[in-house]
Amino acid sequence: MGVPEHHVADLSKAAEGSARIAWAGREMPVLAEIRRRFEVEKPLAGQRLSACLHVTTETANLVLTLKAGGAEVRLCASNPLSTQDDVAAALVAEHGVSVFAIRGEDQATYYRHIRQCLESSPTLTMDDGADLVSSLLLLGRGELAKAHPEVRALGEKLGEAGCQALVSGVLGSTEETTTGVIRLRAMERDGVLRFPVIAVNDSDTKHLFDNRYGTGQSTIDGILRATNVLLAGKVVVVAGYGWCGRGVAMRAHGMGARVVVTEVDPVRALEAAMDGFAVMPMAEAAKVGDLFITVTGNCSVITLEHARHMKDGAILANSGHFDVEIDLASLREAASEIRDVRPNVEAYRFPWGKTLFVLAQGRLVNLAAAEGHPAAVMDMSFANQALAAEYLVKTAGRLQPKVYRLPADLDREIARLKLATMGVKCDVLTPEQERYLASWREGT
Amino acid sequence: MGVPEHHVADLSKAAEGSARIAWAGREMPVLAEIRRRFEVEKPLAGQRLSACLHVTTETANLVLTLKAGGAEVRLCASNPLSTQDDVAAALVAEHGVSVFAIRGEDQATYYRHIRQCLESSPTLTMDDGADLVSSLLLLGRGELAKAHPEVRALGEKLGEAGCQALVSGVLGSTEETTTGVIRLRAMERDGVLRFPVIAVNDSDTKHLFDNRYGTGQSTIDGILRATNVLLAGKVVVVAGYGWCGRGVAMRAHGMGARVVVTEVDPVRALEAAMDGFAVMPMAEAAKVGDLFITVTGNCSVITLEHARHMKDGAILANSGHFDVEIDLASLREAASEIRDVRPNVEAYRFPWGKTLFVLAQGRLVNLAAAEGHPAAVMDMSFANQALAAEYLVKTAGRLQPKVYRLPADLDREIARLKLATMGVKCDVLTPEQERYLASWREGT
Amino acid sequence: MGVPEHHVADLSKAAEGSARIAWAGREMPVLAEIRRRFEVEKPLAGQRLSACLHVTTETANLVLTLKAGGAEVRLCASNPLSTQDDVAAALVAEHGVSVFAIRGEDQATYYRHIRQCLESSPTLTMDDGADLVSSLLLLGRGELAKAHPEVRALGEKLGEAGCQALVSGVLGSTEETTTGVIRLRAMERDGVLRFPVIAVNDSDTKHLFDNRYGTGQSTIDGILRATNVLLAGKVVVVAGYGWCGRGVAMRAHGMGARVVVTEVDPVRALEAAMDGFAVMPMAEAAKVGDLFITVTGNCSVITLEHARHMKDGAILANSGHFDVEIDLASLREAASEIRDVRPNVEAYRFPWGKTLFVLAQGRLVNLAAAEGHPAAVMDMSFANQALAAEYLVKTAGRLQPKVYRLPADLDREIARLKLATMGVKCDVLTPEQERYLASWREGT
Amino acid sequence: MGVPEHHVADLSKAAEGSARIAWAGREMPVLAEIRRRFEVEKPLAGQRLSACLHVTTETANLVLTLKAGGAEVRLCASNPLSTQDDVAAALVAEHGVSVFAIRGEDQATYYRHIRQCLESSPTLTMDDGADLVSSLLLLGRGELAKAHPEVRALGEKLGEAGCQALVSGVLGSTEETTTGVIRLRAMERDGVLRFPVIAVNDSDTKHLFDNRYGTGQSTIDGILRATNVLLAGKVVVVAGYGWCGRGVAMRAHGMGARVVVTEVDPVRALEAAMDGFAVMPMAEAAKVGDLFITVTGNCSVITLEHARHMKDGAILANSGHFDVEIDLASLREAASEIRDVRPNVEAYRFPWGKTLFVLAQGRLVNLAAAEGHPAAVMDMSFANQALAAEYLVKTAGRLQPKVYRLPADLDREIARLKLATMGVKCDVLTPEQERYLASWREGT
Repeated sequence: MGVPEHHVADLSKAAEGSARIAWAGREMPVLAEIRRRFEVEKPLAGQRLSACLHVTTETANLVLTLKAGGAEVRLCASNPLSTQDDVAAALVAEHGVSVFAIRGEDQATYYRHIRQCLESSPTLTMDDGADLVSSLLLLGRGELAKAHPEVRALGEKLGEAGCQALVSGVLGSTEETTTGVIRLRAMERDGVLRFPVIAVNDSDTKHLFDNRYGTGQSTIDGILRATNVLLAGKVVVVAGYGWCGRGVAMRAHGMGARVVVTEVDPVRALEAAMDGFAVMPMAEAAKVGDLFITVTGNCSVITLEHARHMKDGAILANSGHFDVEIDLASLREAASEIRDVRPNVEAYRFPWGKTLFVLAQGRLVNLAAAEGHPAAVMDMSFANQALAAEYLVKTAGRLQPKVYRLPADLDREIARLKLATMGVKCDVLTPEQERYLASWREGT
Repeated sequence: MGVPEHHVADLSKAAEGSARIAWAGREMPVLAEIRRRFEVEKPLAGQRLSACLHVTTETANLVLTLKAGGAEVRLCASNPLSTQDDVAAALVAEHGVSVFAIRGEDQATYYRHIRQCLESSPTLTMDDGADLVSSLLLLGRGELAKAHPEVRALGEKLGEAGCQALVSGVLGSTEETTTGVIRLRAMERDGVLRFPVIAVNDSDTKHLFDNRYGTGQSTIDGILRATNVLLAGKVVVVAGYGWCGRGVAMRAHGMGARVVVTEVDPVRALEAAMDGFAVMPMAEAAKVGDLFITVTGNCSVITLEHARHMKDGAILANSGHFDVEIDLASLREAASEIRDVRPNVEAYRFPWGKTLFVLAQGRLVNLAAAEGHPAAVMDMSFANQALAAEYLVKTAGRLQPKVYRLPADLDREIARLKLATMGVKCDVLTPEQERYLASWREGT
Repeated sequence: MGVPEHHVADLSKAAEGSARIAWAGREMPVLAEIRRRFEVEKPLAGQRLSACLHVTTETANLVLTLKAGGAEVRLCASNPLSTQDDVAAALVAEHGVSVFAIRGEDQATYYRHIRQCLESSPTLTMDDGADLVSSLLLLGRGELAKAHPEVRALGEKLGEAGCQALVSGVLGSTEETTTGVIRLRAMERDGVLRFPVIAVNDSDTKHLFDNRYGTGQSTIDGILRATNVLLAGKVVVVAGYGWCGRGVAMRAHGMGARVVVTEVDPVRALEAAMDGFAVMPMAEAAKVGDLFITVTGNCSVITLEHARHMKDGAILANSGHFDVEIDLASLREAASEIRDVRPNVEAYRFPWGKTLFVLAQGRLVNLAAAEGHPAAVMDMSFANQALAAEYLVKTAGRLQPKVYRLPADLDREIARLKLATMGVKCDVLTPEQERYLASWREGT
Repeated sequence: MGVPEHHVADLSKAAEGSARIAWAGREMPVLAEIRRRFEVEKPLAGQRLSACLHVTTETANLVLTLKAGGAEVRLCASNPLSTQDDVAAALVAEHGVSVFAIRGEDQATYYRHIRQCLESSPTLTMDDGADLVSSLLLLGRGELAKAHPEVRALGEKLGEAGCQALVSGVLGSTEETTTGVIRLRAMERDGVLRFPVIAVNDSDTKHLFDNRYGTGQSTIDGILRATNVLLAGKVVVVAGYGWCGRGVAMRAHGMGARVVVTEVDPVRALEAAMDGFAVMPMAEAAKVGDLFITVTGNCSVITLEHARHMKDGAILANSGHFDVEIDLASLREAASEIRDVRPNVEAYRFPWGKTLFVLAQGRLVNLAAAEGHPAAVMDMSFANQALAAEYLVKTAGRLQPKVYRLPADLDREIARLKLATMGVKCDVLTPEQERYLASWREGT
C-alpha cells in the first residue's frame, strides 16, 4: 500500500495514533458490527466519499468502516483546532486514507483542505457544520465571489460546466451537527440545495446521546484540562438549553457547580427553570458567573458589553460548533493585553482593571483542550453516519434535494445494537400489549 | 342562579371546595390571564362544551375559564376515583355548572355520567383518556353492542339519525393525555374519527411539564400519603420512560431511591441507562424492587407471573391513565386474602406466603391518594385546553377529522406568559442573531 | 387487662391505631429484633419509664418494646400538634399503656400531661426536646417560679423533700433531638444536671439517618400535604445546614426546587456552597424565596423584618423542634388579617398589601401535616432509645451526671442489624487489612 | 540568590512552572492572606522546615508562604509519580527553595530525597502519608533494619546519639492525609511518637473539602484524561465511603454513572445505601463494574481473586494514598502480558482470556494522570498547614507527643476567610439567639 495524497503534520506519529484509534474502537462496538457487515456486503463500492469531520480517533473508526464498505475516502478537518495529528498520520500511513488536516491550521489551509476533498469529485459527502456542502453549493451557483479564495480557485479551474458536473455528481450528503442542520434547512428553504442530505443529527440515537452525554462530559473535561479549577461552588453560566446545553448544565451541576441558564426560547427557558436552574438574561448572568460556556449555535452570545460587567477572573469557554458564540473580535480590540497563561488559556486584560480568561480561542473547548466526545457516544453517531451513507446509495435518485432524517427503524436498530453491546436488556411488547395499543375501543 | 342539573356526592361541601379552588387558582396565573380575556371577548359564546376530566380544583379553574368565555359547560369524571367531591359541589352550587361525578362511583355510574355529558348535544368536547370521544364515535358508527350499556341506552333512545346528528354537531374535541392521544391516532388510522381533535398533550407546554414535573411530584406525593414509607435506600422500579416515567424516575431518585427502569423502546431504554438508572426487563426487576410504579399507557405491565417473583412486602402503584397496567384481575384471583391496611393500601396475601401491597386499586395513585398534579403545571396544560377550544371555534369547518397539535406560536406564547408570571426573564434574539441563523453562507 | 390511667382524645379509634402501628412495625425490623430479645431477657424489669415523645405509630412500637423489656411505661406528647389520636387510643385500650396526649392540646394541658408522667416517680425518662427533664430539674432546684404552673403545682404538692426524692430516683434519661441535646449540654455546663443522659441524637445511626433522610422526606411530605404546590422551579430557602437542614435541602433539590441555604456557621455555609446551593443571609434570602423552611434549633430565624421583604404568596414552614424559629408572635401582631385557607395553612395578610402563608402554626410541619419520620429511620433511632434505656440500667451508679453518647459498638451493631434486614451486605476487614491499618511501619 | 541544594529533573522548565504556580495562586486567596501576614510577622523565623508533600503548583504556594514566614524550607515528594517537574524547577531556580523530587523516581531515589530532607536537621516537619515521620522515628528508635536503606545510611552516618539529636530537635510535625493520620495514631498508641503532630486532615476545613470536593473532582479528571471513556451509563464501583469515597461517588454519579459502593464500616455502608447507591461486597461488585476506584486507605481492596471475576475491559484506578489498594503484585504475576496502550493506561492480559486496564500503575490517579486537587480546595488545606506550623512554634514545649487537631477557632477562621474571598455571606447569631442557645429553661 503506497502512501496516498495527503497533508498532515507528522507521519512519524502514526503508531501512537493507531494505538489510540484501537483504544477508541473498543468503545465502538456498534460501528464495529456495521464494519463487519460492510466488509462482506461492500455497499459503498465505487463511491468516492469526501468527509469534513473532526479528525479524531472516533472519526478514524468511521473512516475505516466506510473504507471497509468499499468507499474511496478523503478526509479534511471540520475545525482548525480539533485535529489529532497522530490520528491523521495513522490514517495516511497505516490505512492508506487521504487526509488533509493539521492541528492549528490557518483559515487558508483549512479551506485548501476542503478544496482537496472536492477535487476528487466525490459522489458522497459527509459534513460537520456544513462547510463542505456550502462551499460546494457556492461553486454550483457560480457565487465564486462569496466562496473562500481557496475554493474560488477550484471553481475558476473547473469553469462553470466543471462546477455543475461537480455538484451533479453528488448523490447526497450527511450532516453531523445541529449547527449544520440549521444551515442546511436555510439552504433548503432558499431552494439552493441540489441533493438530498441526511441530517444525522436528527436521529434520536445521535442528538439524544452525542449532543447531551457527549458534549456534557467532554466540555467539562476540556475545561478541567485547560484550567484545573474547582467547579464545586462556582457559578457556571450555560448559554443555550438545547440538547448540548442541557448536557453541559447537567454535568456542571453534577460537579457541584451552581448553574445559571440563558435561553432565547421560552419553552426551553421554562424547562431549565423547572429543572432547578436559575434562568436569566445574559446581561444579568454576566454579573454573577465564574465560568461561562456557550452552546447555542448562534453568534454574539457573549459580547463586549457583557464582558464589561463580568467579575475579575471569569473564565469564558465555547462548546458550540463555530467560534462566533463569544464575540472575541470585540474583546480583542478592547483588551489592553492578551497573553498565554496556560495551554489553551489566554488572559485578556481590560482597561477597566479586570482580567478574563478565554479558553481555546473560543473554539470548541472539548475538542481543542480535551479529546472530543468519548467513543461510546460517537459509536452511535457514526453508526448513523455509516448507515446514512449506505442509505443514500440505496435510494440513489429517489430522494428530493431536501433535508431528511434517517428512517426511524434504522435509528431504533442502532439503539438496539447499542443496548446489546452494553449488556442491557429491555422488555418487548407482548401480542396482547400490541393489540391494546392499536385498539381505541377499550376504555375505563 | 338556580342549581343546574347535576349528580354529585354532597352539595354541603361547596364552601370547602371553593376555598380549595381559590387556593389552586393562585398558582394558575396563565389561565387567569386567559380568563380575563375570555370575559371580554367571549370566544366560546353559544358553544355547548362537555368535558370528561379529573374533577379537581385545577379543572374547576379551567371550567370557570371556559364559562367566562361564554360556553355552557357540562363536566363528568375521567376516572372513578379521582373526583374531589367538594370541588364538584362548589362548581354546582356556587358556579352553576352541571357536574356529574362522585368519588368512588362504579362503572355503570361512570358511564351514565358520560352519557349525561352527551345528552346536551355538545358542540365541543374535552377528553382525558378518550372515553367520551370513543363513546360518541361508537354511537356514530352504530356499534352499540360495543358501547357500555349506559351509552348504548342513549344510542337506542336517539336512534340512528339522532346519533348521526349528535356526532355531526361536534365541531371538534381536545385530548389531555398520552393514552388518549394513542387511542385517537388509532381512530384516525382506522378512519373512524369524525371531527378534528387537538392533542393538547402534544403541546410542549403540556407534556414537557405536566407529564414530567406534575406526574413526577404528584406520584411521589400519592405514594407517601398512602404509605409513609421511606424512599431513601429503596429500590423503586419505574415501568416506562416516557415523559411521565422520567418525571417519576427523577423524583424517586431525588428522594434517595435507587431507581430501576423497564422499557420496551430501545431509544428510551438507552436514555434511562445513560441517565444513570439500572435498566432491565420487568421479569428481573420484579425480583429486586421494593416499590413498583407503572406509567406506560399499556396493559399488563405487571402480571401475576411477575408478582410471583416479588419480595414479600413489595408495594405496587400505578400512575398511568387506566387501571390496566397492573393485571389486578389475575392478582385478585390468585390471592388467598385481600384486606385494607390503610386508606388506599390493600394487602394481597398469596398462597406462596408473601404479601404485596396494592395502592389505590391500581388506579392513578396521584389522583386517588393525593390531589393530582399541582396547580402550577395544570396552569399550562389547561391554558392549552382553553386556547384549543377557542382555536376549534375559530377554525370551524377548516380542519380535517384528524389529530392536530396546537399551533406552535400559541404553545410558545403560553411558555412566555408562564415565565412572566414566575418573574423569570430570558433573552431574545438580536437582529444580528436572527440574520445569522437564517444564513447558510457564513462558516468557519 | 384493665384500662390504665390516661388522657386521650377518643378510645374508639383504637382499632385504626393498631392497624397503623402494625404497618409501621413492618418497617422497623431492628426494633422488632430487640423486642424479641427484651421479651426473653427483661432488662427493664422493675423500671418505671416516663417518656415525652411524639405520639406516633413508630413511638408506639418503641413503647411496646420497652414494655416487653419489663418497664412500666407512661407516655406524654413532646409537641401539642404531633399526637396521632388513634395511636394514643390503641396504646391505652389495646396495650394497657398510660398515655397522656391529645392532638391540638393547649399549653396547660401539655404541661399537665408532663406532670402526669412525673407523678409516677420514674426511674428512667425519655425526652424529645428536654421538656420533661428541664421540668424535673426545675423541681429539683426549687425553681418553682420558673416552671410551668402545672409543673409547679406538682412541686408544691411534693414539697422540697419530695422533689429531691423525685429527682434522686431517676437513674438516667435519654434525649432524642439536637435541640434537646443543646439544652442538656447547657445544663451540664451550668452544673444543674443530676443524672446521666444518653444523647441518642449523637449516635451515628440516629442523627445521620433520622435527622437527614427522615426529616428530609417527611418535611417535604408535610409541605405537599398542606399545600399541594409544585416544588419544581420554586426557590426554597432552607435555614440551617445541620443534619436536618441538609436532609431538607437535599430533598427539596430532589424535587426540582432551587435551594438557598442560610447559616450562621461558616464551615457549614461553605459546605452548602460547595454542594452547589446558593448561600446568603436571611435578609437577602427573604427577598427571593417562594418557600421558607427553618431547621436551625434556634429562635427568631425568620423575623417580622424578614417578612416585610418577602414576596406576596410566600410560604413559611418550620421543621425544627420548637415553634420559635419563625417569630410568629410578631407576625401575628403585624397582620391585619389571619385566616385558614386549607388545613394547616393560615394566610397572614399584612397592611403592606402582601399575604404570607404559614404552615402548621409554625410547629413541626412533618408531624403536624404529615405523619412524621418514616418508620424505617425511626427503627434505628428507637433501637438506640431502647438500647440506651438498657444501658442506663446496666451502668446504674457508674455514670456521672453528664451527657453521654451511646457506646460506639452498640451504635455500629444497630447499623449492622439494619443492613441485614435490608438485605444489604458489606465487606469485612481481612486479617491482612486489620494488620495493615494497625501498622505504622509500612509506607511507600 | 544562588541556586540551593536540589535534585530536580530539568531547571529549564522553571518559567513554565512559575506561570502555573501563579495560576494556582489565583484560586488560593486564603493562603495569600496568610502569606501577607507572615511576611510582616515572620512567625517561622529560625525554623528549618522539611516537607514531604506532592510537588504541585498548590504546594509551591504553601512553600512560598512558609518561606515568607521566615522558615528555611526543604521539599521532597510524597509520591514518586505526583511530582510536577516544572514546579520543582521553579521553586529551585526562581525561589531558592531546596527541592528533591523527580517525577517517576524509583523507590531508592524517593527515599534518598526523604533522607536529604532529614539531613538539614529540621525543627518542623510536614508530612503527607507519614513517610517522613516514620523514617525519622525508625532512626530515633534505632530500628535501622526496618528503615529503607537510604534512610538507614543516614542513621549509620549520624550514629545513635546523632539520631537522638535529630529526633529531639523536632518541635512537631503536621500530617495532611487520612492515611497518614491512621499511621500516626498507631504510633501514638504504640508509644513511639516523640513530638506532637497536628492532624491537619482532621480540620473541618480540610477533610470536609479537600477529601470530598477535591478528591471527587480530581479523580474523575484523572480518569478522563487517562482514558477518555464515557462515564454515563457505566457501572462505577467506588471502594470506600469515607470523605474521599463519597466525593468520588458523588462526582461519578454527577457524570451519569451508576455507582456501586463497597465498605467495611456498617454505618457508612448504610449511608451509601440511603444516598441511593447500590452497596455490595467487592466479590459481587467485581462482576458488575466497568470502572473501579479504590479510596479506602487500606491494602488489597482489589485482589487477584476479584480480578478473575471482572468483565473484559474493566478499568482499575486508585485514588487512595498508597499504591497498595489494588494488589498489583498478584495481578502482574498472573498476567500473561502487560503493555502500555495510552499514557497512564496499562493493559493486563490474563490467561483466562480477559484484559483489564490499570491506570497510573495503581498510584493516585488524580495526581499521576491529572494535576491533583484544584487549588481552590488546597487553599484551605494549606491554610491549615501554614497555621499548624505557626501553632507548633507558638506552643513549643507545651504539647504532648500526641496527635492533635488544629484548634477549632483557627479552623473556623479559615472557613470565614474562604467565604469572604468567594463573596459569600452568611448570617451571624443575634444576641437573642446566643442567649436562647445557652439557656435550658425555655421549652415548649
